[in-house]
Amino acid sequence: MWNSSEKREWGREVQVNQDSGHGIGHGSSMVAGQTEVAREERTKDHTRLLGATSFLFTEYQYVGIFMVAFAILIFLFLGSVEGFSTREQPCTYSKDKACKPALFNAIFSTVAFLLGAVTSVVSGFLGMKIATFANARTTLEARKGVGKAFITAFRSGAVMGFLLAANGLLVLYISINLFKLYYADDWEGLFEAITGYGLGGSSMALFGRVGGGIYTKAADVGADLVGKVERNIPEDDPRNPAVIADNVGDNVGDIAGMGSDLFGSYAESSCAALVVASISSFGVNHDFTGMCYPLLISSMGIIVCLITTLFATDFFEIKAVKEIEPALKRQLIISTALMTVGIAIVSWLALPSSFTIFSFGTQKEVKNCPVQDVADSCRTGAATNVIFGLALGYKSVIIPIFAIAISIFVSFSLAAMYGIAVAALGMLSTIATGLAIDAYGPISDNAGGIAEMAGMSHKIRERTDALDAAGNTTAAIGKGFAIGSAALVSLALFGAFVSRAAISKVDVLTPKVFIGLIVGAMLPYWFSAMTMKSVGSAALKMVEEVRRQFNNIPGLMEGTTKPDYATCVKISTDASIKEMIPPGALVMLTPLIVGTFFGVETLSGVLAGSLVSGVQIAISASNTGGAWDNAKKYIEAGASEHAKSLGPKGSDPHKAAVIGDTIGDPLKDTSGPSLNILIKLMAVESLVFAPFFATHGGLLFKIF
Amino acid sequence: MWNSSEKREWGREVQVNQDSGHGIGHGSSMVAGQTEVAREERTKDHTRLLGATSFLFTEYQYVGIFMVAFAILIFLFLGSVEGFSTREQPCTYSKDKACKPALFNAIFSTVAFLLGAVTSVVSGFLGMKIATFANARTTLEARKGVGKAFITAFRSGAVMGFLLAANGLLVLYISINLFKLYYADDWEGLFEAITGYGLGGSSMALFGRVGGGIYTKAADVGADLVGKVERNIPEDDPRNPAVIADNVGDNVGDIAGMGSDLFGSYAESSCAALVVASISSFGVNHDFTGMCYPLLISSMGIIVCLITTLFATDFFEIKAVKEIEPALKRQLIISTALMTVGIAIVSWLALPSSFTIFSFGTQKEVKNCPVQDVADSCRTGAATNVIFGLALGYKSVIIPIFAIAISIFVSFSLAAMYGIAVAALGMLSTIATGLAIDAYGPISDNAGGIAEMAGMSHKIRERTDALDAAGNTTAAIGKGFAIGSAALVSLALFGAFVSRAAISKVDVLTPKVFIGLIVGAMLPYWFSAMTMKSVGSAALKMVEEVRRQFNNIPGLMEGTTKPDYATCVKISTDASIKEMIPPGALVMLTPLIVGTFFGVETLSGVLAGSLVSGVQIAISASNTGGAWDNAKKYIEAGASEHAKSLGPKGSDPHKAAVIGDTIGDPLKDTSGPSLNILIKLMAVESLVFAPFFATHGGLLFKIF
Repeated sequence: MWNSSEKREWGREVQVNQDSGHGIGHGSSMVAGQTEVAREERTKDHTRLLGATSFLFTEYQYVGIFMVAFAILIFLFLGSVEGFSTREQPCTYSKDKACKPALFNAIFSTVAFLLGAVTSVVSGFLGMKIATFANARTTLEARKGVGKAFITAFRSGAVMGFLLAANGLLVLYISINLFKLYYADDWEGLFEAITGYGLGGSSMALFGRVGGGIYTKAADVGADLVGKVERNIPEDDPRNPAVIADNVGDNVGDIAGMGSDLFGSYAESSCAALVVASISSFGVNHDFTGMCYPLLISSMGIIVCLITTLFATDFFEIKAVKEIEPALKRQLIISTALMTVGIAIVSWLALPSSFTIFSFGTQKEVKNCPVQDVADSCRTGAATNVIFGLALGYKSVIIPIFAIAISIFVSFSLAAMYGIAVAALGMLSTIATGLAIDAYGPISDNAGGIAEMAGMSHKIRERTDALDAAGNTTAAIGKGFAIGSAALVSLALFGAFVSRAAISKVDVLTPKVFIGLIVGAMLPYWFSAMTMKSVGSAALKMVEEVRRQFNNIPGLMEGTTKPDYATCVKISTDASIKEMIPPGALVMLTPLIVGTFFGVETLSGVLAGSLVSGVQIAISASNTGGAWDNAKKYIEAGASEHAKSLGPKGSDPHKAAVIGDTIGDPLKDTSGPSLNILIKLMAVESLVFAPFFATHGGLLFKIF
Repeated sequence: MWNSSEKREWGREVQVNQDSGHGIGHGSSMVAGQTEVAREERTKDHTRLLGATSFLFTEYQYVGIFMVAFAILIFLFLGSVEGFSTREQPCTYSKDKACKPALFNAIFSTVAFLLGAVTSVVSGFLGMKIATFANARTTLEARKGVGKAFITAFRSGAVMGFLLAANGLLVLYISINLFKLYYADDWEGLFEAITGYGLGGSSMALFGRVGGGIYTKAADVGADLVGKVERNIPEDDPRNPAVIADNVGDNVGDIAGMGSDLFGSYAESSCAALVVASISSFGVNHDFTGMCYPLLISSMGIIVCLITTLFATDFFEIKAVKEIEPALKRQLIISTALMTVGIAIVSWLALPSSFTIFSFGTQKEVKNCPVQDVADSCRTGAATNVIFGLALGYKSVIIPIFAIAISIFVSFSLAAMYGIAVAALGMLSTIATGLAIDAYGPISDNAGGIAEMAGMSHKIRERTDALDAAGNTTAAIGKGFAIGSAALVSLALFGAFVSRAAISKVDVLTPKVFIGLIVGAMLPYWFSAMTMKSVGSAALKMVEEVRRQFNNIPGLMEGTTKPDYATCVKISTDASIKEMIPPGALVMLTPLIVGTFFGVETLSGVLAGSLVSGVQIAISASNTGGAWDNAKKYIEAGASEHAKSLGPKGSDPHKAAVIGDTIGDPLKDTSGPSLNILIKLMAVESLVFAPFFATHGGLLFKIF
């Protein structure tokens, strides 16, 4: 239990007469204490930035080695298709035409892979930089009022969103045009090589998500277990040695990881649509405008999001907390409405025949009523809370799966696999707005952390908390979009793989396919086991370090000595780098091993199995975690009579809720989001290596 | 914290000078108190038997209504295939021959369904009766020593196992021969009708498992949460009002439910093998001995198990606790070895050509080392314990899935779908020994409960606990077998369905199949959500009642007044009956709805999806629950330095372990085992209705 007066006691230079106005302004009434706070805050800010940068650079070193190794692998595997010959080969789809030699396809695929990887890394890094600066600025703006803080946080998110969307599109467009100088009329080869771009983007996303996810949750779980549960000090309290690591984690995990992830989806769905188009009528008739239809949709998306953002930041002004959530929902509605018109225009202008592709959204809000059930179950302890939360998460897969099934059926009926690729792209076309909404949450959260650490008035923390909470529902919708689009993207990639590998059908009743299917459905469990255990082990290390500091550093609990933040940052960094390798290897090696030894039929089974099983675990993990988080927040907020009967903080039901929330952290922030990448990445990798598997794959069955 | 001396204080007539010898004997030294104990115990025994019987009869009332309704449905659906015509029809596989009219197939299928259902119900009921009597006898024998207790518990389990295997085989054999009087040479129709037997057995198993699972866990969780966590009284303490309900639950859930479940698997795999055989060369050439090969394997299994059982009960004598686990493992090894010889003999005698079918086991032991990890994680609280447990459960799917994949591949390569059906049957052929080992655990557990309630010496409880613990590892192997055989059975049924429905291929890349696949993969989650939530709600009700009794009944905590056991039994009964309907409906209606409205392709997708996804959840749920259970037991036993550092009972790590164990209960005893049935039942139901779906199915696609 704590309250703001207790909070003021321990701090040295915390000023108490902070502004408490609801509107904008009051910013000029600075007192001497505040300067002191600002200085101290700047030091922490520096630690934070250094922590994040140091983590990312360590990560990039490892990832760099991987990139080079994998680039060599791509070159060797794809080059070997025609035995590294420099002679032209007959095209796969029009046997009478000559296509570029496989060796050059290998070279260009490798280049595209590296381009995608570098673009992804740059996107993640810049996003993280923006977020780190935005955190502190949001805290400062929060003193002036909730409206100013909202605009700062949202604009920062938007900057990141636009940067990412524009970056991805630009590099892709330039690459296509440069590659075209060599490939000329061989579009089949051209877009096969371009697929490397998707693979590069997505494989970096994997490491970003997994590494970042382990980092952030190790710090978060470690900080909470000792701080909140054992020592009864508030969240983000500067006495907690893991608090900076936790802050850094939010930036590297939620921001950089999410940025890379969405960039990966975006690059992959573009590539999937391009590959499918290249072997369809657009490609065969050499209709470049039609061919570029996927890119045009993305461009239109950027314009639409630009207009949409103005509604949040310039056309309307947020004055009170309760206006935030409607404003964010308005963003989603406006962008979707404008984008529908935009897609119609692009389709009318660019597509040769007049067919339209519909894209169904797949969204799942964790509504209030079931969360109350979960909160209620805290009365009887942590165990019932966990049981109810797991049940709620399992239940939450029903609606999204039906939505995905319907969108697959409709888009496939309209334009086969191309329809599915374009549906995915449609869902991702408002990526800039989506990212702005998603990124704004962690930015506000961290801003609150900074306010707490700087010992600023309770009022400011309340404002940033309100900002964060308002974003939770919309963030859940965003997550639903990410998963839904990932399912569509990987299905489209799967379809492209099957046509590239020249498989006529994937019959479940052949044992080669079925064993692939059942093993594929197992992979998401294996992967989740690895990531969750990693978070658990890293969190254990963090807990021990935090306990050690509390026990060994005199004056830490009283607030007279500073904790050793850097050691905690180092623990998270080391643990996450070390722990991200096995799950990363599992995802990256599976398609290679299965394709090489068992062949394309079994690989198809693996892709289908991991897709249908991974989507379920991703959705249920995200929503289980979300439900526990919301149940805890519901009790803490104490907004209704019912909620008050469960509270206050520190009561037994609240403790049970905290346990649930802690369990949910690795589920919703590490395992769940990484699974998106697992299913996409395995599909895009199979697509890139398809020519190799088709030629040399299935060694085991060839031998026996 | 409690100990035996404290235990002795509250009881009135507990005698303290109970025997404490290690060997056999001492039984004659009865004191007056013991007679009193025995009398009181007999009353409780009576309540227990009444509770179990009353639950089962209430369950059978509901299930009876369902059986009649579903029988009518089978008749109407199958009869409508040829418009209720009494004319003979051309056979599906040999168009030039005339087969029996669809109307009569409908009648015989309905009869077979009812026979299967009744046999399953009788098996479950008798098993439960045996177990109830065995409980008390084991307690009494435990006074004489661990060896006598072991033999009593194991023999009771064996009686049940033989009863079930023999019953199932006998009814099936008689039915085939009676049906044959009508069908004569139309073996296609004969074995199509016989499939109803599998459906009947399996649908009863569903209700037995789900209803029994909810019952037992509601009582268990409710009893533990208030008793162990809030009131700090030991497990099975007679002061706890829910303790009798918990005892009853063990019998109806673990014994009757498991009996029905294994009976269902057994009936289904026999039917799957028979159907596949009927349209293969055996059927076409009318080789009745070859046709009966599956039944011969089962018969051989009974003989083999009979010999095997003698090794445990007569050839060797158990004298110490540490001999039990090796003895049980020896049972598995002996039965497998003998059965391999037995199958070879049967194959040599019965099969026309000399091919052999191998059956790979799929077993997963929850080993000690990972459990220590889980136990260790209790140091940092319940949250890390849950995270590690979930991760361990996820990880545990890897090996069984590879084992299943290999056995599918090998058995399919040898004899296509027939190979898979026979592999499943091979795994189930030692069902009698398997059931003896499985049933012996709950019997010993309940015997311990009775000892506790009767206030018998601590020594006796230790013996029954040792019996129970020794069975845990072997029970885990048994569970692995149940899941593995379920996977094989449902694949075989799936294959039989596809050939009955005349589908040439199940191509994942057609949208009809793919949407089925993804929705099918979702169903186990939906089903688990329902069953877990049911356990949660029922447990909440139980907790409230137990708390109410502790608060309102004066003298209950002191042991001077008796609790109101009957109300708790009623709560469990009502809750489980009410809550088993929605999950039951989900499983039973899905194939009907999908087949009727979306057709056989989508239904194939649903079957494949639910199979590959359900197997994973079933394995991970069982092992997660098992790991938590073992981690708790590890801490409680305190057998090593490491374990002692985590204990004793009541320490914070132990409390965290108890929370994990409570969460694991619905996972390992309700959701996990029910999922076996889900995947098998949907497959056998589709097979029974295949002629209807093939003729009238896919309404929705026909309309649009």
